[in-house]
Amino acid sequence: MANHDGANEVFLALADPTRREVIRSLGSGPASVGELAQPFAITLPSFMKHIRTLEDSGLIRTSKSGRVRTCTLNHDRLAIVGDWLKEQRRVWDQRTDRLEALVNDQEETR
Amino acid sequence: MANHDGANEVFLALADPTRREVIRSLGSGPASVGELAQPFAITLPSFMKHIRTLEDSGLIRTSKSGRVRTCTLNHDRLAIVGDWLKEQRRVWDQRTDRLEALVNDQEETR
Repeated sequence: MANHDGANEVFLALADPTRREVIRSLGSGPASVGELAQPFAITLPSFMKHIRTLEDSGLIRTSKSGRVRTCTLNHDRLAIVGDWLKEQRRVWDQRTDRLEALVNDQEETR
Repeated sequence: MANHDGANEVFLALADPTRREVIRSLGSGPASVGELAQPFAITLPSFMKHIRTLEDSGLIRTSKSGRVRTCTLNHDRLAIVGDWLKEQRRVWDQRTDRLEALVNDQEETR
């Protein structure tokens, strides 16, 4: 099955608490890798791996100015998750509608 | 960083198009493994791996009756994704509020 929209990479990027926390932090605005790394008790190379995974998924963009790499959240990319959930809810609602119609039919024919 | 709520497993389970499609199918109601596997051009053992990953994540429950294993969606578990998105939106809204307040302050002092 195809992965047209990059949903695989986005969900995979979010399957880690450090990366989810980075996304959460960036919700408050752009930040440097140094600032983002601060709360985590891991080495900078390990942290950079997480940053690269997030960048590869498209969830964040990074840009370097001098020695500072700044990360910015890409809201559009996170919409992939929201859209998928919305589609899932649509499927449930259709099911609920069908079940309701079935119950109403049974009541009418009683 | 801890993973108290099983979010890692849920996001990881969703990082695959076959597994997302199974979740989507189960949105219409419980189904047997055989029914669920039908649209996919993969072997049953490969498909069973996906089912087990989904079961381990708590997104689905399975039960066996005779030779038929039936899968049921666990809506509550999918709420982990929705709750995380909601929390993320709360962080953004706070930022937007701060930016708006800043703009208003600047206009007032102009």
